[in-house]
Amino acid sequence: MSITYPAGFRTGTAIAHRPGGSQRRNLALVVNSGPMDTAVGVFTPNRFRAAPVIWTSRILEEGHAGAVVINSGNANACTGPEGLDQARAMAERTGEQLGLPTEQVAVCSTGIIGHLLHLDSILTGIDQAAQGLSASQEAGEEAAKAILTTDTCTKTVAVDGSGWRLGGMVKGSGMIAPQLATMICVITTDAILEPAQARQALSEACRFSFNRIDVDGCMSTNDTVLLMASGASGVRPDPDQFQEKLGQACADLAHRIVADGEGSRHRIRIRVDGADNEDAALACARAVSGSTLLKCAVAGEDPNWGRVVSSLGTVPAATAAYDPAHVDVSFNGIKVCRGGRPGQDPELVDLHVPEVHIDIDLGQGDSQATVWTDDLTHEYVTINADYHT
Amino acid sequence: MSITYPAGFRTGTAIAHRPGGSQRRNLALVVNSGPMDTAVGVFTPNRFRAAPVIWTSRILEEGHAGAVVINSGNANACTGPEGLDQARAMAERTGEQLGLPTEQVAVCSTGIIGHLLHLDSILTGIDQAAQGLSASQEAGEEAAKAILTTDTCTKTVAVDGSGWRLGGMVKGSGMIAPQLATMICVITTDAILEPAQARQALSEACRFSFNRIDVDGCMSTNDTVLLMASGASGVRPDPDQFQEKLGQACADLAHRIVADGEGSRHRIRIRVDGADNEDAALACARAVSGSTLLKCAVAGEDPNWGRVVSSLGTVPAATAAYDPAHVDVSFNGIKVCRGGRPGQDPELVDLHVPEVHIDIDLGQGDSQATVWTDDLTHEYVTINADYHT
Repeated sequence: MSITYPAGFRTGTAIAHRPGGSQRRNLALVVNSGPMDTAVGVFTPNRFRAAPVIWTSRILEEGHAGAVVINSGNANACTGPEGLDQARAMAERTGEQLGLPTEQVAVCSTGIIGHLLHLDSILTGIDQAAQGLSASQEAGEEAAKAILTTDTCTKTVAVDGSGWRLGGMVKGSGMIAPQLATMICVITTDAILEPAQARQALSEACRFSFNRIDVDGCMSTNDTVLLMASGASGVRPDPDQFQEKLGQACADLAHRIVADGEGSRHRIRIRVDGADNEDAALACARAVSGSTLLKCAVAGEDPNWGRVVSSLGTVPAATAAYDPAHVDVSFNGIKVCRGGRPGQDPELVDLHVPEVHIDIDLGQGDSQATVWTDDLTHEYVTINADYHT
Repeated sequence: MSITYPAGFRTGTAIAHRPGGSQRRNLALVVNSGPMDTAVGVFTPNRFRAAPVIWTSRILEEGHAGAVVINSGNANACTGPEGLDQARAMAERTGEQLGLPTEQVAVCSTGIIGHLLHLDSILTGIDQAAQGLSASQEAGEEAAKAILTTDTCTKTVAVDGSGWRLGGMVKGSGMIAPQLATMICVITTDAILEPAQARQALSEACRFSFNRIDVDGCMSTNDTVLLMASGASGVRPDPDQFQEKLGQACADLAHRIVADGEGSRHRIRIRVDGADNEDAALACARAVSGSTLLKCAVAGEDPNWGRVVSSLGTVPAATAAYDPAHVDVSFNGIKVCRGGRPGQDPELVDLHVPEVHIDIDLGQGDSQATVWTDDLTHEYVTINADYHT
């Protein structure tokens, strides 16, 4: 169940590698057959924005697109005007195949930075993918597979609304930072959705999902989340229900990214309670989720609360008010730190489980925030020392 | 050549472990025999300040101390009022042995967080160390060894001024953050130095040394740098020369910490040029030095400039002005990124060397800043997954 779950969407995939490269499918088209062509996006705030991000953010200003073309393996980032020409060429060829204006085609790329695309292979791949377009569930699964890089599994979602459907796919497992991630996400719906509503709903959904995960604190140049609406269900959704379902879908996909974090063996949920306001709680949660030492401790199944509080201690008082002598920390429900001092016996904590819950109470106010991350293992180092330019 | 290199200082060491613990020496005394007793410190800005940091920063307010007692293995951090009582007890026993008021004894601790000390062993250790005080070079080396935790080697320095000397020792290899580090550093001099001058000189020296290194971005609860002056040379140093020599000594010790970074195989010097001002250059250098992905790439000997620019891109424009299209990046002199795009062939870069120089030119102004870090290896993960509470 993926992006072809809602009515009005077809996908096609192809192998678009430079000669001699791997034979994995690495190119996907997602086509919206309408009747609507709403399409909005949320993009990386990185100042080195990749060519496809520049292209796609520009053409989606009015909130319309008929298709998106995605390649994996090469991010077409830091490639200057030539890279932008290449992104445009991908849109143009896709448009020719589908009978769409070039400006109606969004482009996403993910992979290594600083290399121009092998454009001939990509254009041939677009032709092939366009020949094989299908609305089948299998085609949706193939597309979810074709966008992966270091991911170890596909990540898809399918959600039912009242008379309408929502589907999604995402790739991402490393270079996952507090603000989006090295991720490409496409969400489709057959609900009737105008661009303004779509834009607002997507922004809100990202805030509590993709913007609350952190695998390695590294923000990418290519992060893109697209929401496309075909209107093919003929149903105009209840706005609250749509927001809720979209939020669920994004959170679900975000958690799958963390679960597939490069080399990860434990998902870590960091929840900060008792803050004066949500921003303060979030700053504390992010400080903890960014601790390399804590992530290593969890890999070693050690409930090392010292590494939690030493990270908390780096948050300036102006950002988050709290008294260190009133801070509690629990690992999976065992309060190992009480009032900034040793609490229950850490031996009581069992971290031989796939999901670790670190709950922090600042003892200050009533606001909370949650961030997800994962542990830092030998496999992460191997993956990122060996994934060469 | 260590802290006993200048005249007027004696050290003693002891084994102060809980019963059944390791038999490594883990306690050191440093005693200033005068005639002066100037002592100033720079301390971690972490809000969870360990008991010895609270104690020592308080007693050094006037700039005087006759001795410092240091234990390794247990940081006496997050231990509440009992921990503060223990730090005070260490100072008291040391004072009794040396004939000093309790408030004349600085205390430093390093090691695991969240455990009270095994105080009986520590106090017995203080008695033993006081019996064996010596001004020999060997005694200085023993002290440098006794303060280590996960360090693989001692880190000491000895510098000559005009008629005066300076010596130093430091421990630290993990939990090393942009602002100081999990480090204890003691610097001694026989120059005549008043507290005010000592304080200003130490602060300035730290700014460009210990505050410019980053092993894992994790700020500790116990960081302390002490400067003690005996005046035993009878020489009042030229202030500029003293500042220069002290700065050299601190930079030298800081680089040794990076060189001994947990699991590290490459030192990485990140220099940012062409910034509008030093703060902008420093923010960019720190963003790059904090990239887990880049540190893995260097471990894999891959000159991955994409991971450099994607980190640069996270620095807000308000913090550091630059145009991504004017940014150059070199690895060991090979300009692999020119104007935000591919430059020289990365194959020309040889990273099979112990020190990697990443030079970034923002193409904006004339200011620069340099930060040192190291690579992220399997060994780092092993050390920090296995170093349990």
